[in-house]
Amino acid sequence: MTVVDEPSASEPEPLTLAQLAELAGVSKATVSKVVNGRSAVAPETRAMIEDLIREHGFRRQRRRSSPAAVMELVFHELAGDYPTEIVRGVGKVAREHHLAVAISELQGNHTPGVDWLEDVLIRRPTGVIAVFSDLTGLQRERLAARRIPLVLLDPTGDPGHRTPSVAAGNWNGGLSATRHLLELGHRRIAIITGPPHALSSRARLDGYRAALDTAGVRVDPDLICQGDYQIEDGLTHTHRLLRLANPPTAIFASNDGQAIGVYHAAHQLGLRVPADLSVIGFDDMPPTRWTIPPLTTVHQPLSEMAAAAARMLVTLARGEPLAHNRQEFATALVVRGSTAPPVAKSIKGISR
Amino acid sequence: MTVVDEPSASEPEPLTLAQLAELAGVSKATVSKVVNGRSAVAPETRAMIEDLIREHGFRRQRRRSSPAAVMELVFHELAGDYPTEIVRGVGKVAREHHLAVAISELQGNHTPGVDWLEDVLIRRPTGVIAVFSDLTGLQRERLAARRIPLVLLDPTGDPGHRTPSVAAGNWNGGLSATRHLLELGHRRIAIITGPPHALSSRARLDGYRAALDTAGVRVDPDLICQGDYQIEDGLTHTHRLLRLANPPTAIFASNDGQAIGVYHAAHQLGLRVPADLSVIGFDDMPPTRWTIPPLTTVHQPLSEMAAAAARMLVTLARGEPLAHNRQEFATALVVRGSTAPPVAKSIKGISR
Repeated sequence: MTVVDEPSASEPEPLTLAQLAELAGVSKATVSKVVNGRSAVAPETRAMIEDLIREHGFRRQRRRSSPAAVMELVFHELAGDYPTEIVRGVGKVAREHHLAVAISELQGNHTPGVDWLEDVLIRRPTGVIAVFSDLTGLQRERLAARRIPLVLLDPTGDPGHRTPSVAAGNWNGGLSATRHLLELGHRRIAIITGPPHALSSRARLDGYRAALDTAGVRVDPDLICQGDYQIEDGLTHTHRLLRLANPPTAIFASNDGQAIGVYHAAHQLGLRVPADLSVIGFDDMPPTRWTIPPLTTVHQPLSEMAAAAARMLVTLARGEPLAHNRQEFATALVVRGSTAPPVAKSIKGISR
Repeated sequence: MTVVDEPSASEPEPLTLAQLAELAGVSKATVSKVVNGRSAVAPETRAMIEDLIREHGFRRQRRRSSPAAVMELVFHELAGDYPTEIVRGVGKVAREHHLAVAISELQGNHTPGVDWLEDVLIRRPTGVIAVFSDLTGLQRERLAARRIPLVLLDPTGDPGHRTPSVAAGNWNGGLSATRHLLELGHRRIAIITGPPHALSSRARLDGYRAALDTAGVRVDPDLICQGDYQIEDGLTHTHRLLRLANPPTAIFASNDGQAIGVYHAAHQLGLRVPADLSVIGFDDMPPTRWTIPPLTTVHQPLSEMAAAAARMLVTLARGEPLAHNRQEFATALVVRGSTAPPVAKSIKGISR
């Protein structure tokens, strides 16, 4: 299966811990300290044992049936800062428990293929965190059969099912983003959504609708643009929106990447952010502080969410019950420089 | 050591492959297919065996002394797109060889601590890739003693030592960035460097010096600013540079992050990029296409470099010799919208 599993036929059999101890004339505990890289061994003894290992090799005795001390992290795609934030959060918890963090990418798919499952079942990790992705029912059953726990982070699908999950308060985030724009005086507020299969996207859209509705502002279907959480969404939809007879004065982008695309389109159209067009994002990725102007956005605590998912996994791997099968983290509005009151009629007459 | 290694005392002993095969009345090969997630097993047979595993547990027989099928990837810090690009490149090769990719972060340090080494020695991975970081001499010896190969990617230190490494052509990149600015007519060209301990930074600076020197332009020490590859470097140094009596008309930022900081400072000073100030970056991270204006930069093929490092590791893990102990990847100038000819005296008289 793997290229490195096959011992070459010509190599002599490596020694066991006991054989090394006998050869070195030291206790097995001392050899164990050396092979496990622990301190409290005299430098000469360490050097002697390491020489023996270099010469003869060392055959580790694995604990029977012990799972690999690895948390598996599955991403639908590796792009931008989003994976970095999540790996950082999982890594913090993993270090505390001396677990490795292993990463797989599904090349844009939201469920892993057969190869992925085969490899994971062979590795038998401590647990699996699926990020903005999910397993098929059969894949979940196979993991369960091997007692490998699964936690969904920022789940795409129905968070009501029995798989433990961690998500942000997306609906509230959508609500507060839209309310911020309403409070500034905007009435023509557009939204660029994520993909319709993602519940996070639906929740943000529903929060937007609820904010407009409770403010007595009509929800105009012309101002709801379906995107896919990509920068390009912001670019193409902004061009279309600003050509409407009655264009929006503010755009709520469902993630920060899309907001970057909106900035780009506004620049191409000769509009200033926020004087001519207010823009608000979602996620609060680190680079948003450095856009020009700095982006007003909804903070989603991705690193903390990732750490929480990792802690759930450790609890499940211990065979202990979870206090909550689903954790939701509050989002927070971060007001920076991309939102301002609308200037009446300021962007009328664009016909490019 | 790890929270999941301790089998709970009350649990019955899980069954071996042979015991499961006997209980199910099937061949060991069939059980093996099921536990390894392979196809070509009748659904009812698979269901029956999985039920047995659910009921009794399964005790995997590990191959003697086989290393964990994991590539260890060590980052000095997890920030921005840089780790994402590298994980993507390593992941591609890892998938081909059914290896997991494990990630550690050194929280900004450039050599791992004792804890890291202990955990890695226990995991005994296929190999270690240290990214913009290095191991101490002792740490390298300990890995070597366990026959765990090490490859340095984008090495910080002396690439001449015997540890295999993969780097970009940083000197040539610095040369071509500076030549591009010279060809546009710039003569007052500043550079913001990376940290002095990083050879990548020194090489880019030397390329800058060589370009100026061969063009007969004096290297002005006032225009050489020491940074740390951080966005903030661009911000603070640009403010200082543009207050000089004879300020630069172009700034070469040693990475894209710093270039973002330069944009920010230029904006604060009311200067337009590139009309009033040309800016060039280094790395060509995906977001640079979306800055306003899009950033002219030096492309460093990070994903390809990461894939090459992973391939070297696989070769070493097989016990085969490397064709080259050091691989260097060519960089390429990517001209976008942030560089233009200087306008004579355009930025004189700034005294803010």
